[in-house]
Amino acid sequence: MTQDTSDFARVCGPFIEKLFSDVRELTHSPAPRRGVTRLGYSPEEDRTVEYLKRAGEALGLESEEDGAGNLWLTLPGRDRSLPALVSGSHADSVLDGGNYDGLAGIAAAFCPVLWLKAQGIVLPRDYRVLVLRCEEQGLVGSTGLLGKLKPVDLDRRFIAGAPTLGELLARHGLDAQKLTGGKPLMDLTKIAAFFEAHIEQSSKLDNLKTARVGLVTGIRGIRLNRRIRAIGVGAHAGAIDFPYRHDAACACARFVSHIYDKWAHALAMGDDLVVTTGSIRTPDTAIPNKIAGECEMTLDMRSLDDEAFARFSAVIDRELDELAAEMGVTFEADPSIIIPPNHSDPVLMAHLRKGAESLGIGVQEMPSGAGHDAANFGAAGIPFAMLFIANQKGSHNPDEAMRMDDFLAAARVLTEALVRYDE
Amino acid sequence: MTQDTSDFARVCGPFIEKLFSDVRELTHSPAPRRGVTRLGYSPEEDRTVEYLKRAGEALGLESEEDGAGNLWLTLPGRDRSLPALVSGSHADSVLDGGNYDGLAGIAAAFCPVLWLKAQGIVLPRDYRVLVLRCEEQGLVGSTGLLGKLKPVDLDRRFIAGAPTLGELLARHGLDAQKLTGGKPLMDLTKIAAFFEAHIEQSSKLDNLKTARVGLVTGIRGIRLNRRIRAIGVGAHAGAIDFPYRHDAACACARFVSHIYDKWAHALAMGDDLVVTTGSIRTPDTAIPNKIAGECEMTLDMRSLDDEAFARFSAVIDRELDELAAEMGVTFEADPSIIIPPNHSDPVLMAHLRKGAESLGIGVQEMPSGAGHDAANFGAAGIPFAMLFIANQKGSHNPDEAMRMDDFLAAARVLTEALVRYDE
Repeated sequence: MTQDTSDFARVCGPFIEKLFSDVRELTHSPAPRRGVTRLGYSPEEDRTVEYLKRAGEALGLESEEDGAGNLWLTLPGRDRSLPALVSGSHADSVLDGGNYDGLAGIAAAFCPVLWLKAQGIVLPRDYRVLVLRCEEQGLVGSTGLLGKLKPVDLDRRFIAGAPTLGELLARHGLDAQKLTGGKPLMDLTKIAAFFEAHIEQSSKLDNLKTARVGLVTGIRGIRLNRRIRAIGVGAHAGAIDFPYRHDAACACARFVSHIYDKWAHALAMGDDLVVTTGSIRTPDTAIPNKIAGECEMTLDMRSLDDEAFARFSAVIDRELDELAAEMGVTFEADPSIIIPPNHSDPVLMAHLRKGAESLGIGVQEMPSGAGHDAANFGAAGIPFAMLFIANQKGSHNPDEAMRMDDFLAAARVLTEALVRYDE
Repeated sequence: MTQDTSDFARVCGPFIEKLFSDVRELTHSPAPRRGVTRLGYSPEEDRTVEYLKRAGEALGLESEEDGAGNLWLTLPGRDRSLPALVSGSHADSVLDGGNYDGLAGIAAAFCPVLWLKAQGIVLPRDYRVLVLRCEEQGLVGSTGLLGKLKPVDLDRRFIAGAPTLGELLARHGLDAQKLTGGKPLMDLTKIAAFFEAHIEQSSKLDNLKTARVGLVTGIRGIRLNRRIRAIGVGAHAGAIDFPYRHDAACACARFVSHIYDKWAHALAMGDDLVVTTGSIRTPDTAIPNKIAGECEMTLDMRSLDDEAFARFSAVIDRELDELAAEMGVTFEADPSIIIPPNHSDPVLMAHLRKGAESLGIGVQEMPSGAGHDAANFGAAGIPFAMLFIANQKGSHNPDEAMRMDDFLAAARVLTEALVRYDE
């Protein structure tokens, strides 16, 4: 560890340790559940945002909320008319999730403030810490900010029986009509770049052992089918021979299995791709000795590469057509939800890479398989880059883990990239 | 139509039409539901048995109930010490089922009585109409009769919230302890042969058009797995690459798909086989963007051929082992329920075949895919044979259909076989 990074740990460590500890205390799941729960626009997320607002104000940052309830904390630069550098992540968590998914990226965004102040450095332009709302339920805070929220989104409930998003926004005094009006909540040319640090959502980085910080090359695009329904004909299991079957369960199973084989083939050809069937289910009335007349499944396909994305999306559609004919069933699919791949900005990447090199911090380039608010900024034409922090226990669970050294290394690299931005 | 068959229709038709109509009236499902409902040991099944008892007594038959509540109606033969010929089927139906599944076989068993009386024929031995209880819920009436009911069966409920089988038996004044004592309720050497007519449970026969009556070569054996559970590791759908997955949904889907391919191969090799996944399901907590850590499925395999049965059962076990290794999951299966294939008695088959030939009634040999009480008799060492009646709408549904001409043709063939038995 160089003198610089140990100084950085001395300056930032205590503040960060307290932040994680305080927010965990404010939002831990009630016993006997474990982990933290700060759902989007819940009182727990509100408490988190309020805490971060006070922490920022205590550091002398200017604070402001936008029309989606996102918190902006600004460290003024020398020329305040220049587009700002922005860094942050989301304040919310999943139900009984870990403390770091989202919060680590906000905490990391505070570190440049602490370090620059300690070093007496004033940046050429404003630097803004951005605390986003409600990422886990469809990137709501950033989508609203960027003018992409749709009226239909207001009817969504994140948990059965809970208020709708529209109701939650109203409770927060936020103007739902303005949020879904199709216009960004701010002049987006006022954002020069968005940096997001985040714990990696798998343990790939942690398993590598060669580097503890990931430089995210891009965020995989997603094709999501929430419901693909096979409709066949229910009939007696023992009495209906092979040629007379219209087996919906078997049709779905064959689709999943064939797609798995084709995924393996695409990987062998060098494509970046992940494909997942999260849910497959015959109706509750299905019984062992009856051929299933109905079956539903979901499909989540992701790729970082635009061509591989389009190619495999076509493979999926063709497979559905072929299987419908082969199995004598009909497939009905909800419209695909498509988020194209988003690539990190090469200039920002270069700043991060060179910054890490100069500090002697090992980094590993890697795609992000999970979606992130940063992808929304990229899709809106704002250059972005992401840093991954090694994680030992996966994410979205109470046992999610992160080492403070790894966190501080990522925050140090982020700080260095901000300083290098105008050099 | 020969004179003989048109005479047969004249003798039996009115009685049979009235029987179907009366029992339908006694047991139709309450509106707005359709079909009939006479669940095992329900008041509706009781009413049906009581009606049939009176109908038999009106024909001069001796009536008797056994310890499982099955009704025996006896037409005395010349030598009453000889083992009897028995024919019948089950009085119960599924919930909102059709009127003919089960009842047609009982009605057909009445026809020889009507015909023999009209012709003034007395058989060399007793002929007994057997009205069995509760077939649809696991062949309970015949299993009890044959001494194969187990104490654990008494705890079963056929519908959630309904009384257990033990409670139902007690309400009928039946001795559950005697029924599960491991001994048949009667001396089985007193049964020379069991004939069962039944509507076919698919429309294979009806589609053939060449013959309206099926001669059942045997009843497929069953290997039933009520629950095969794959246990993997739940994880983020986008962030976990191919080699790091333990996807339980995909593992189950691949099993179903591979088994389907292997089934097709076994059929191409000439095996008699049907394989069905009635139910496949990830837990209710499964979501599209999470790799499923758990998935459950059922498996129902049937074959008429002992060797093919054993061969494919081994294929299933091997496939589970191979997939567990390939997919990095564990499969946990409930113990397989095994009912071996049961073959129709060749002598009885010959009587039926020759009888049909002599009457000019076209028949088609075919296996029974569905289970039947007759299989229980076969497993107990009692020679059996079955006749299928063409059916236009499948079974276990309110629209189940049967043509009276087809029914009478089957009943005529049955009657002829009984007469030929001692010739």
